[in-house]
Amino acid sequence: MALEFNILAASEAGGRRGELRLPHRTVQTPVFMPVGTLGTVKAVPQDVLETLGAEIILGNTYHLYLRPGHEAIRRMGGLHKFISWPRAMLTDSGGFQVFSLSQLRKVTDEGVRFRSHLDGSSHFFTPEHSMDVQIALGADIAMAFDECTEYPADRARAQESLRLTMAWARRSLDHFRAHRDEVVWRDEVVWHDDLGAPQVPSTWGPGNESSTQSLFGIVQGGTYKDLRRESAERLVEMDFDGYAIGGLSVGEPRALTLEMIAEVLPLLPADKPRYLMGVGYPDEIEQYARMGVDMMDCVLPTRAARHGLLFTSEGRINIKGKKYAEDQGPPDPACNCMVCGRYTRAYLRHLMQAGESLSGTLNTIHNLAYYLGIMERVRRNLHTEA
Amino acid sequence: MALEFNILAASEAGGRRGELRLPHRTVQTPVFMPVGTLGTVKAVPQDVLETLGAEIILGNTYHLYLRPGHEAIRRMGGLHKFISWPRAMLTDSGGFQVFSLSQLRKVTDEGVRFRSHLDGSSHFFTPEHSMDVQIALGADIAMAFDECTEYPADRARAQESLRLTMAWARRSLDHFRAHRDEVVWRDEVVWHDDLGAPQVPSTWGPGNESSTQSLFGIVQGGTYKDLRRESAERLVEMDFDGYAIGGLSVGEPRALTLEMIAEVLPLLPADKPRYLMGVGYPDEIEQYARMGVDMMDCVLPTRAARHGLLFTSEGRINIKGKKYAEDQGPPDPACNCMVCGRYTRAYLRHLMQAGESLSGTLNTIHNLAYYLGIMERVRRNLHTEA
Repeated sequence: MALEFNILAASEAGGRRGELRLPHRTVQTPVFMPVGTLGTVKAVPQDVLETLGAEIILGNTYHLYLRPGHEAIRRMGGLHKFISWPRAMLTDSGGFQVFSLSQLRKVTDEGVRFRSHLDGSSHFFTPEHSMDVQIALGADIAMAFDECTEYPADRARAQESLRLTMAWARRSLDHFRAHRDEVVWRDEVVWHDDLGAPQVPSTWGPGNESSTQSLFGIVQGGTYKDLRRESAERLVEMDFDGYAIGGLSVGEPRALTLEMIAEVLPLLPADKPRYLMGVGYPDEIEQYARMGVDMMDCVLPTRAARHGLLFTSEGRINIKGKKYAEDQGPPDPACNCMVCGRYTRAYLRHLMQAGESLSGTLNTIHNLAYYLGIMERVRRNLHTEA
Repeated sequence: MALEFNILAASEAGGRRGELRLPHRTVQTPVFMPVGTLGTVKAVPQDVLETLGAEIILGNTYHLYLRPGHEAIRRMGGLHKFISWPRAMLTDSGGFQVFSLSQLRKVTDEGVRFRSHLDGSSHFFTPEHSMDVQIALGADIAMAFDECTEYPADRARAQESLRLTMAWARRSLDHFRAHRDEVVWRDEVVWHDDLGAPQVPSTWGPGNESSTQSLFGIVQGGTYKDLRRESAERLVEMDFDGYAIGGLSVGEPRALTLEMIAEVLPLLPADKPRYLMGVGYPDEIEQYARMGVDMMDCVLPTRAARHGLLFTSEGRINIKGKKYAEDQGPPDPACNCMVCGRYTRAYLRHLMQAGESLSGTLNTIHNLAYYLGIMERVRRNLHTEA
């Protein structure tokens, strides 16, 4: 197997404190994964991400396929090497962006033809192609190619979308199993401990069967409980390395999001990692982690930061506000990140007003520290509650 | 006096290895000063500047006067506190930007009326006002208000411009002397050693006469040797804390730049720091430092970086070039900066192509490391040659 997942403690509410052993990092879960769309968590240097304690980041297959191209990345030793990120990575399947960003999409059972949002060039993605691209990128975890069902979608539409996603999951898995060992670091990766010393546990190491990529299946089904159940059950039968819940936080009311998550979680194998995709606000990631979600990602902390929205222990603040013009307090008085330890709200506001790029960098560092801090607290609590 | 300048070694060519003791930092000279236009060296966090070894950075009076305003900065404890930069700073007089950026300028003997390049609002700068603004900002070193003579300028024009600059230098100095003690950190600053421990030498410290701002006069005179001489001699009579050479690198041939510098340097007091403004390429800053220039600043390493131009031991490279698309070497094989130690040319090119803001950050860090490294080497050589 390509990953090891050990649950260290569990709460009555279903929350799990775990260790997810991946070829490039043992990740402490529940974990929040910063989004590194184009091979960079926007505006933040890699060493700062390390200092913040990020153990796993995302890369977007659609974006990296278009720029600089997955074959170029493979030739350069894979995504980890290309962006100089030695810790764990996960790539999405490209599906979400194909459906949200590209133009002139044409979906068939075979796959999706679309035009690049960059230059209008024509491309065709199939489950097999998505796997090939993700194996070339070489993240620790790849995702099955799926269609993210939009909201609202009527039952017939959700059902048809699910049919496609399930067929694609099967094809993704078959193709991935046949080719996962072609990942460029297959014979190179040695798992390192926190201090960088190589450690090769008995079932782990270079040339070892364990040292390759993992594939997660994605539960869809819109906002229909029975479709979600069907989706989960069929994926579990296929036996993926882990399971994601997709197609949520796409506009539906939050109560409905919660209902779908609560419906799906108990159907997923307890000993496999569970990943809730593209979610959410700070209170949401805390809530879902306590329910038993092990992994989450979201562009919110990074994207909001670039627009001046800071998440703090005192709530959200829009740093552009005039009231911060001479505010000499730190962005968040309860935060001990490198931004809150050094800079004032007045300075962050000034950078934003002046359109300085340091604004995006500092705002993002704080928001990521805030998100990662929430998960650290949840992990501590899960230990205590257990 | 407001600064102490000790020459530790000197070369036959006139180069000086010195220590410039300023209220917020003892600066090793010759020194290159990164430009921090709006209270940020564009795209680079302050802690990275410290790691790079930057001991003194610039702030632009014109820009900071417009945003966020000098009175706001004074209320917040001055520019050092506002931007969280504990080391030395220098502000220009605002003159250069008034003449290069603003609209509808009207120059009289009294001062300059101009419209903001941001919102068209009308402003009036006099030498006295420039001093007031710079005292509010509270940099360690302020600059006299001058007119930067354009190139080419005929003799009559250069002469008239010089007349104005000399009258303004007198008024700048008189007003500065009368008000320098109003600087907001007048009774606060304690000089710190490299490890941050407060050190109060006998002639130095809080409440001590030494602990206030310095003012430099600016030699102008276009490309006319006799006007340059006249300018230098008249400024020296006024007895500034240090002397700058302005109005060079504004389009004139480099041989002429060199000629003017060579003409002026011997006329400046040997025991006062000499600052060549707005210059230049790596080989220039090295050449001028070896001739006896103690301080230089230039937007080139930072601005060029944002356009993908990297200065390296192998010459200038445009990182946007297709030939770097899969170049796995560091930006500069001879550089040990944090960018060259971690990232490849291929990655920097990708960031640039993708319009990622991390591109500006990493390119700028390398270019600054390169410039600061040149000066470090020059300082070492001056010790050896002496």
